[in-house]
This record gives sequence, structure tokens and C-alpha cells, in this order.
Amino acid sequence: MPDRERDLLADYELGDNRYGKSRIRLVTVRRGPTEHNLRDLTVAVALEGDLDAVHTAGDNAGVVATDTMKNTVYAFARDRLTGSPEAFALELARHFAGYPVVERASIDIEEHRWLRIPVDGGEAPDAFVRAGDLTRLVHVTANRSGAIQVEGGVGDLTVMKTTKSAFAGFDRDRFTTLPEVDDRLMATEIRATWGYRADDAAAQGFDFDAAWEAARLALRQSLAEHFSPSVQASIWIMATAMMDAVPSIDWVRMVLPNLHHWLVDLTPFGLDNPGQVFVSTTEPHGLIDATVHRRDAS
Amino acid sequence: MPDRERDLLADYELGDNRYGKSRIRLVTVRRGPTEHNLRDLTVAVALEGDLDAVHTAGDNAGVVATDTMKNTVYAFARDRLTGSPEAFALELARHFAGYPVVERASIDIEEHRWLRIPVDGGEAPDAFVRAGDLTRLVHVTANRSGAIQVEGGVGDLTVMKTTKSAFAGFDRDRFTTLPEVDDRLMATEIRATWGYRADDAAAQGFDFDAAWEAARLALRQSLAEHFSPSVQASIWIMATAMMDAVPSIDWVRMVLPNLHHWLVDLTPFGLDNPGQVFVSTTEPHGLIDATVHRRDAS
Amino acid sequence: MPDRERDLLADYELGDNRYGKSRIRLVTVRRGPTEHNLRDLTVAVALEGDLDAVHTAGDNAGVVATDTMKNTVYAFARDRLTGSPEAFALELARHFAGYPVVERASIDIEEHRWLRIPVDGGEAPDAFVRAGDLTRLVHVTANRSGAIQVEGGVGDLTVMKTTKSAFAGFDRDRFTTLPEVDDRLMATEIRATWGYRADDAAAQGFDFDAAWEAARLALRQSLAEHFSPSVQASIWIMATAMMDAVPSIDWVRMVLPNLHHWLVDLTPFGLDNPGQVFVSTTEPHGLIDATVHRRDAS
Amino acid sequence: MPDRERDLLADYELGDNRYGKSRIRLVTVRRGPTEHNLRDLTVAVALEGDLDAVHTAGDNAGVVATDTMKNTVYAFARDRLTGSPEAFALELARHFAGYPVVERASIDIEEHRWLRIPVDGGEAPDAFVRAGDLTRLVHVTANRSGAIQVEGGVGDLTVMKTTKSAFAGFDRDRFTTLPEVDDRLMATEIRATWGYRADDAAAQGFDFDAAWEAARLALRQSLAEHFSPSVQASIWIMATAMMDAVPSIDWVRMVLPNLHHWLVDLTPFGLDNPGQVFVSTTEPHGLIDATVHRRDAS
Repeated sequence: MPDRERDLLADYELGDNRYGKSRIRLVTVRRGPTEHNLRDLTVAVALEGDLDAVHTAGDNAGVVATDTMKNTVYAFARDRLTGSPEAFALELARHFAGYPVVERASIDIEEHRWLRIPVDGGEAPDAFVRAGDLTRLVHVTANRSGAIQVEGGVGDLTVMKTTKSAFAGFDRDRFTTLPEVDDRLMATEIRATWGYRADDAAAQGFDFDAAWEAARLALRQSLAEHFSPSVQASIWIMATAMMDAVPSIDWVRMVLPNLHHWLVDLTPFGLDNPGQVFVSTTEPHGLIDATVHRRDAS
Repeated sequence: MPDRERDLLADYELGDNRYGKSRIRLVTVRRGPTEHNLRDLTVAVALEGDLDAVHTAGDNAGVVATDTMKNTVYAFARDRLTGSPEAFALELARHFAGYPVVERASIDIEEHRWLRIPVDGGEAPDAFVRAGDLTRLVHVTANRSGAIQVEGGVGDLTVMKTTKSAFAGFDRDRFTTLPEVDDRLMATEIRATWGYRADDAAAQGFDFDAAWEAARLALRQSLAEHFSPSVQASIWIMATAMMDAVPSIDWVRMVLPNLHHWLVDLTPFGLDNPGQVFVSTTEPHGLIDATVHRRDAS
Repeated sequence: MPDRERDLLADYELGDNRYGKSRIRLVTVRRGPTEHNLRDLTVAVALEGDLDAVHTAGDNAGVVATDTMKNTVYAFARDRLTGSPEAFALELARHFAGYPVVERASIDIEEHRWLRIPVDGGEAPDAFVRAGDLTRLVHVTANRSGAIQVEGGVGDLTVMKTTKSAFAGFDRDRFTTLPEVDDRLMATEIRATWGYRADDAAAQGFDFDAAWEAARLALRQSLAEHFSPSVQASIWIMATAMMDAVPSIDWVRMVLPNLHHWLVDLTPFGLDNPGQVFVSTTEPHGLIDATVHRRDAS
Repeated sequence: MPDRERDLLADYELGDNRYGKSRIRLVTVRRGPTEHNLRDLTVAVALEGDLDAVHTAGDNAGVVATDTMKNTVYAFARDRLTGSPEAFALELARHFAGYPVVERASIDIEEHRWLRIPVDGGEAPDAFVRAGDLTRLVHVTANRSGAIQVEGGVGDLTVMKTTKSAFAGFDRDRFTTLPEVDDRLMATEIRATWGYRADDAAAQGFDFDAAWEAARLALRQSLAEHFSPSVQASIWIMATAMMDAVPSIDWVRMVLPNLHHWLVDLTPFGLDNPGQVFVSTTEPHGLIDATVHRRDAS
């Protein structure tokens, strides 16, 4: 082994790097006169900047400790988590982008949905059930220069179409055994993220909640209604429907596993199986990842 | 090491034993003229019986292969999974209890809920979203003699009460640092199982779906409304409410983690925190396990 | 719904119950003059006793808070976690069994193994890698009367036999499609637990570490060497080998999933597959659970 | 909502996209005259190329079905998985890059290590235990042009330094409460990946196994020996040591969570705690991600 006491910077250099705090678990309760409001977020902070000496010289001057990031998230939550998670993420990102060593600050949020528990005569004011049907996603960056990027999204949204899905016309070679089908189950766990036009996102009072809700509804509607010749085509169809519905969205990315459901062969037992009984599998799975852009994107 | 060729039965004997197939992933689609119905079950089969020679002599005569169990579940699903999961489990359990070596057959089912996707003007007939808010649980046993036991349940039901929960008056000794509190968050992931009266469960046409729904609603209502002096007392209150609501239930068991939410100390940052900002934790957690019986249980 | 203000104790009674603290994550470092020793345990405490009023009346008098249990585990770890995890569990169990309300205290420990990192010329005195090949299991109970039970075990031990495993001679009926095989892969994740003779376990200076190590080695040796006509027979063979090796063990229980590896059909691609290429699966899986007793058990 | 029957391509365009098959679980057994050899891989295939019409027109002409990818992996494993996982990945990547629609093919492999079970007098020829201490990582791409990239790596490698780790000199502001420490535990789960010089990787007979082993040993040695002023500095130190040891490596990237171990305050119980008893945590955690390059990289 070469002499490790030599000047390593003669041979090596630092490349891309970032650091931060992940899995900051934050719950807030707002106690109104007649009912409580509950929020449940998992927050991650990541910073990039002038960090060469931290790595190559062990010099921590100017480093924002990840413990400080965590403290800041909780402190900001006290009074500033009152609107959309995107707005909260923007406040955090701009704060961290103000440290001298920081060139760019990123905030990721997963918001877990809780619903009021239905009770006789209405809804409980102070008891909640975790929804579990999807997670709201936020990714925000702020640069030292003041430039920002805001992305929204949904994750953990597991869906199934029991018809209007086919897969045919694909390449056949000596390794191909899959039959063409004109009617299959299509099941996936949707992870869709999208980018807001920078000027809209930076505008005071932009309604991120309304935009997110409109995007979610368009996704849901188009998912239910479209005929799918492939998961790839489904992404195109759903992504364009979302952008039709929300003009502030510049692009949509979807990462969709194809969670195969195989028709069980019941003929050994003297039974037919006309699309009735399936085995649900998770591995292996197809994985389709595509982004669709608006042509006149900002 | 002693001579392994000797008669091991002189020194050792087989004790409790069971075997079966777990994680049988079953999805069915029923294709009606106007809409599809989707079911999603994870099934486990376990058998007990005259299996000494299987273990001690390597003699597989009479053994029902676990692969055969899996086949049977799929074959039965073709025509017999038309009502409640409890009824389906009973058919399976009685079938397996009919094999000569089997003394007792157990069926466990987790039913995963899917909801129709809302679309403009109603609901999609053939597109579904996985609910994710709870799992329906079934445990059924059938004996060679014909005796049966049926249990229902809910799992994966994560809930939170933001007030009406306290914990005080407990023992204090030199290892105690927890302060008494008259108002705390109570969060848990409910796993509740219950036993149906044997004669009700065995009756033709007993409505397991209605019983399960009534139990679930009573659990939900009592969860939201009661004042909790401890998780233990909450179990008593919720379990008795469920049995009040469903006379066919003989006992209720709950296993409840106490998922602590700690108030964040914001004073270093010059902020108060009157029950607003919490850190959500999963480990360590309290774990409370209790069963409540009806006194005149069957 | 009936009047909830009535005397619920007229209709209902508390059954089996226990409560405690789970997932207490404990790491200790002992700093010797030449090297450090690292321990990593996950501890759970559970108590049973006179807890009727806690449940039915919300009266917490005498209740040991689960937070106090956690504190006690950390405080005891300061000076008393110096030998086997079984000895540490016994100290904790006896402590908790001394509280007036407690009839029985149970301690469960998972010990995660760390190994010194090999370096040029030996091993690092202060750097460790987590082994990941198995977890050591401990379950101890102490009663108010002073009676104790001590169980050892191993978990998370994933193994495979690439031959000397068969499955034939089993029942065939109309739901059976599995062919008989005289040579298959057998893969499982072993969870084996065993009970020590009460008088041995209670003896001052009983060497739990030596007993555990001997049991582990006998399990490993017999696993590698035996011919398996079924997973059931494997349990009998391995369990009796372990008791042959460790006279203080009264019984052994194993819970073994049968993690199927299916031979891939390569004939569509013009290839044979003489036991070469397999698809590894986790669901569905067989699950075999059996206990073997020493006939003259204590 | 606008008319969805219009020409969507007027408004939208497809951006980055890829698709493939993930979680292909492959086990091979090579049956030599005296012993078996066991391999256990999880393989993922991803393709990029001329896929616009697949997405925007639902035209699957030329599409390689993900089922075909899976078949190909199993068929290739029959005779071609005889050397390093990198060599196997290269064969697969070059095969897939040969399809007309494919511009670039990527193969990811996780190799899970199995060790022969030690038995009296040596090692079992046909019985194995899963190591669990680390996963070997491979990422290979092949372009239509013939250009390739090969990356190696290790994952799931959990390590701890019980001294020679500090964190001091960092920024302090009003959100900072973390004290400076000159001696702390440093625990992390290492994910390190690295890129091989393209000409070395493309050379016939390049010994990927030797390179991987040398990189692993250098990582291990430097991990154990260095003094860490921060996780960032540790990455620099370990990455440069790996490149010192393996000239064919151009760059190393590490993604390291900082798995905090907090010293337990035992003073309420009348005990000191001089670096003895810690609570192990996983959330929140620091997360440090950095790449180090060789200056004269290819």
C-alpha cells in the first residue's frame, strides 16, 4: 500500500456530495375549540455546498450538524407548518440555503394521511385512523441564488385494473414464452412525482394543496378509464391527463412496478378458470420508469 | 457424541407439532354484467394429527403435501369463495380435517381490502385501490370430530387519540422517571381478534360479514369516545363495547403496542410547545396484550 | 347499544393478560486496556400479575410503567451485563418478579453478533462488523415464588442443503400435482429454541454460553450431515442430536419455513437443467413446527 | 378537461424512460465430484432505447417483454454463470444491447454470500449457511455502440467503531444543541460502489473477483484503522485507500447513514456511564453521500 501520509489531493479529488438528516418523524396537533387537526410527516434534509475541506481535511468549520437540521425542523413546525407541506418545505429549504457553506438545500417530505374516525352523528374531533392508501410526496430545493424547484407526488398507491389491459405485439425470439393477451389484470404500486413551473411555485399564495388534489384526481380518473396496451402507454396516458388538469405542472414521472397476477391452471382439478382465480406475486416484477414533459415547459 | 444409530425413541419423544402452507396469495375477480368484484386474500393452512412416524421414521405415508394444500385453496376459490372469508375458511378446514391422518385443521386468512376507484359520476366498475387502513383477520379450526372454532379480527389498524388519554397513579421507584400526565397522545396499531360462540358459528347462514362489521364499528366508536386512563383500560372498554354490540362474540383479545409520541422540548429555541409538536417513535414501545371474556361464554 | 354506565363486571371478566416494553435497543461497550468488547441486544420485558383493577377500573396503583422497565434494563446493563444473556435476563426477571403486583416476569433477548474486523496482523481492538448469520435468542421467566424457566435459541439462521434431501411417499389425491423427488434443495431459515432443565438453569455458575455453543454446533453438524426425507424428519434428527450433545436441554422446538427452490424449465430454450438453475421463492412456503422432548425431562 | 382525443404529441413529449425486470431470484448449484458450489443472485435488467411509440402510440413492436428478460437470465445462467458476477452481467448486457430497439442495457446484480457449513474435520461439501454480513453489488451497462461501464460494490455491511471517532468544530447557531465530542461511537451500514476503468473492464480476462476482494479488504482495513473527524472525512479516507489498493478503480461512491448511538443518562439511578451503555437508534439518522475521483480517471 502506498504511503497514506502523502498528499492525497495530488491523486484524488472530491466529486458529487451531499449530507443531511433523514427519517425525521414529525407529528403536529393543532387544538382548535371544536376539533383537533393532526399532521404526520417524515422529513429529510440534504445540503450541498463548499464541503471540500470537511471531507479532505477533516475541517468541520461551517458545517451544519445534522442534529441541528433535526432541531430546526421541529422548531419550524411549531408555527410554520400551517399550510401545505410544499410551503413548509420551502421555508426549510430557504432557511438552510442561507448558511454560508450551503449552495443548495433539499427537503423531502412524506405526508402520511390520517382521517377522522366516523362516529354516530358525525366525525370524532380528536380520534384518527391512518389512511394507508397513499403517501403525499414533496421534494423542494432552494439554491443560494434564491432559485427554487418544487415537486409534488404520490407514493404507496396500490391499484388494480381487472380489465381494459392488454399486452400484445411485442418482440418474439427464442427466449420468449409469454403469450400475447388481450385482457389481463394490471396491478401496480404507483409512485408519481411531478414538477411545478418555477414561476408558479415561487408565487406568493400558489395553492399547492389544490394543485396536488387536482393532479391526484386526474391520475385516479385516467387510471380507471383508460385502455392500457402496456404499462408504458399507461404512463403516457395518465401523465398527460394530469398535465391537462393542472397547467402548473411541467412534467410527470412515474415509476411503476408491474405486479404480476398469474391465472392459476385449474385443469388438473377438472375446473376451468375464465379469469377468476389468480396468484398474486411481487417478485420478479416488471419495472417501468418514464417521464413525460410539457413541450412548452418553463 | 453418542451413537446416532441407536433407537432414539428410547430417549426422545415427539411433542406438539403442526405443519402447513403459509403465504398463499389468492386474488379472485368475479365478472358481473355491470361490474367486477375483487377479493385479495393471504391464506395459511396448518394441520395436526397422527404424524409421529413422519418425524421419527421419515415415513410420509398419509402426509398431505403442503403443495397439495396450496392447490386446494386455489381450486376451492374457483366456486366457493362467494361469501365471507370465515365461510371459505370453514369449507377448507372441514375438507382438510377429513384426511385420515388429520386430527385438526386450521385456516388463517388475511383479507386485504380494495375499494372501487371513484370517478366522475360514480365508481369505476373495474378499477380498484387497495385501502390500506386495516386487514380483516380470520382463524378457523375444524376437528376430526366435526367441532369447529371461528375467530374474526382486524389488524394493521393504526389509530391515534389526541386527547382523552392519561397515565397517572402508577408505581414510582428508583428506576421511575416518567412524569404523570393527564393528557397525552395515544397511538397504537390495533390487532383485535375475537371468538364466535360455537353454536352460532356452526349455524347455517350465520352472517359473519354482519358480525364483523358490527364489531368493527363498535371498536371504532368506543375507541373515539372513551377516556383512557391506560392502554389496559382501553382494551377493557373497547372489548366490552364490541361484545355489547355483537352477542355472538364470546371473547375479545387485543394486542396493542403503545407507539409513543414524545413532546419535543423547544425551549432551547425560545419556543413553548403546548401539545403541538411531537416526535413519533416505534422503538421501544409498550406492548399490552389482554383478553376479555363474556361471563356466560359458550 | 346497552347502557355502558352499568356494571360491566356483571357480564364480563378479564382473561389472560400481560404487558411490557418491547424493542429496547441496548448496546454496551466494555473498554479494556488492549481492546473493546461490544454487545448488542434487543430486550423485551413482559409482566403478568394482579392487574384486574388496572383494566376494569382504570386504577394504576402498583403498575410498573413500561418506561420504568426500559430504564431498569439500561441501569442493570451498566454493571450486570458481564456474562451470558441468559444470566442478564435472569437478573432482570427476578427483579421484576419482586414487585408486589407481579406474579410472573418474562424477559426476551435477541443478541446480535458482532465480530472484530480482521486487519493486517490480527484483529481490530475497536472496530466491528455485524455478523448477520444468526441471532441468539433468550427467553426467561421468573415467578413470584422464585421458580424460573430458561430457554435458549437461535434465529435468522438461513441454510441450504443442495442434496441429501428428498420428499416422496406422501398422499396423492385429486388436488396433488407435486411429483415425488429423491433429490431436492432444502432451504430454510432456522428458528430453534430449547428449554434448560430447571435445576441446571438455576444452579450458580451454570455455563449458558457453553451450552448454547454446544447446541449450535450440534445443530450445524447434524444439519450438514443428515439425509432428510422431509422437513419434519429433519427436525427430529437435529433436535435429538442437540439433546445428545447438551444433557441440560430438556426439549427443542423448531419452526422451519420450507423456502422452495424450483428447478427452472429450460427446455423451451433448448437447454437441459440437471439440478443447476433454480428460482428462489419465499411465498408461498411450507411451515413446519415441532417440538421434541427428552423422555426423562425435568 | 380538454379533449383527450386530440393529438397529445402537440403538447407533450416523452422524456427519460427505461423499463425492465427486477427481483429475478436466481440460485445455481454446480455439482462437482467432491463438492457443490452454490450461487445466489438477485438480478435486474433495464433497457433504454427507441421506445417513443411504445409510450405514445401503444405500439409494442420490437419491445422485449420483461418476461423474456427473466427467461434470458435463467437460460444464460445455465452455462455462463461460471465466473464473476460482473462477467455474467456483461454477457447479459451485451445480449440485450443487441436488440434493435435498445440503445443501452443495464444489469444490476446483488450477490448473496453463502459459506460452507463447518463440520468435524473440515467443511460440508453440500450444506451452506447464508453469510449475512454483506452483499456484493454489480452494475453494468452496455451501449449499442459496444461501450461498456462496470461498477462493483458492497452493501448491507454494518460496522461500528467504538473509538477513534469524533465530531467537533462545527457551526453553532440558535438551533444547535449537539455538544462537541472527541470520542463517540460511529456506526453505519456501508453502501460503497465503484467504477472500473473502462479499458480494464473491457479487457479479456480482467479479474473482477480479485479486484472486488482487494477493494473490500482495503475498505475493511482503513475502516478499522483511521481516525474519523466526521463521516464525510471517513468516506474520503476509505475511498482513497480503496483506490490506492486497486489501480483499476476510477472512483468510489459511499452512501453512509450515521446510525446514532446515544449514551444513556444513568444519573437518575445513581450510576455513572463512562461510555458503557448506549441506546441504538435508526431514525432519525444522518445520511452522508459522497464520491471521490481519481484525478487521472479514464
